[in-house]
Amino acid sequence: MHNTIKQQMLWRYATKVFIPGKQVPKETRDAITEAGRMAPTAYGLQAFALVHVTDPALRKKIKTEAGYSQSQITDAGDLFVIARRTDINDAFIDAYITNVSQTRGADEASLEGFRGMMKGDILSRSEEAKATWAGRQAYIALGAMLETAALLEVDACPMEGFNPAKVDELLGLSEKNLSSLGLFALGYRGEGDYYATAPKVRVSKEHFILTY
Amino acid sequence: MHNTIKQQMLWRYATKVFIPGKQVPKETRDAITEAGRMAPTAYGLQAFALVHVTDPALRKKIKTEAGYSQSQITDAGDLFVIARRTDINDAFIDAYITNVSQTRGADEASLEGFRGMMKGDILSRSEEAKATWAGRQAYIALGAMLETAALLEVDACPMEGFNPAKVDELLGLSEKNLSSLGLFALGYRGEGDYYATAPKVRVSKEHFILTY
Repeated sequence: MHNTIKQQMLWRYATKVFIPGKQVPKETRDAITEAGRMAPTAYGLQAFALVHVTDPALRKKIKTEAGYSQSQITDAGDLFVIARRTDINDAFIDAYITNVSQTRGADEASLEGFRGMMKGDILSRSEEAKATWAGRQAYIALGAMLETAALLEVDACPMEGFNPAKVDELLGLSEKNLSSLGLFALGYRGEGDYYATAPKVRVSKEHFILTY
Repeated sequence: MHNTIKQQMLWRYATKVFIPGKQVPKETRDAITEAGRMAPTAYGLQAFALVHVTDPALRKKIKTEAGYSQSQITDAGDLFVIARRTDINDAFIDAYITNVSQTRGADEASLEGFRGMMKGDILSRSEEAKATWAGRQAYIALGAMLETAALLEVDACPMEGFNPAKVDELLGLSEKNLSSLGLFALGYRGEGDYYATAPKVRVSKEHFILTY
């Protein structure tokens, strides 16, 4: 497993050229998104969601109106948006407590301390701090999904180079209490992508890990 | 592989009780941190680093002075800090361009457009926006490391419940242009951890993925 992970993390790259329209089988796509759903988050609060954009007309609009015409937005088999939740409030935490209670068969009364601690910690933050925090949690899941895609030999292109406000508008995300952070395309690499064979550029191990 | 990933993402949990002092073999630990080093980041800029805290006295200080006495900080085999870089400036981007040039054997002149684009995009942001962005990138790597740990049957406890300013002070991170975001302990689960067998609480698939 050590070698498989190492090899697949080297195999992956931010794919720019996809085989147009070649979709990821549903079972494989589900395995990727499930890794995101099962990924750890602070308190388990999962303050984010995915949007699977399957409508070709919408994908075209995202590409031309919000995506600087990047071809992978329409060419890749599947396009997802990862979005943070904007409704980090009492009701959000209460819904989570209800989920904990139902999933674990625990009385809500036994969870009052946990509820109070989360509310005291998170709801005391500014909206900006909540957004920063939710964004980080979402990216734990993004990291897990991108590794999972690589392990399943699915190519991916994670993208921050787009207009998030425009994507929110095109998909009506504000009304769903979501705000887009990133796009990721999934599919299969096509011919002629320089990055497929270019050596990976990374900081050295010595630079990446300090030891105390 | 689908099933292995699914199974291991269910196997993992934020471990509170570790077998004290049982360390992760170096090869396995390296595989976990390498997944973080190889993880994708925006532009490839990797605006973060890890600190491997091996000194028992320092771990004890982190636990008592910054970690609300959480036992996993000292009991787990290994303790890491994940920290964002605070020096996101001209020199940082220039060093990256040099790395790209050397790694890929490309003339720096051919990378001027790329350098200019990154500087125009990133250096125009406020310090707060840079911090938010760097924090998200770090968490992509955190997600990859936590999945890798699970795949290699290493238990982990990612933690945001600590005093980051105090950890920065104890480790002198400011002088290294780093600011701590999270801790993660690695090791092996001990007996008597409620969370080891408690059902995982997650939003439903329908709630997690919207389809357009």
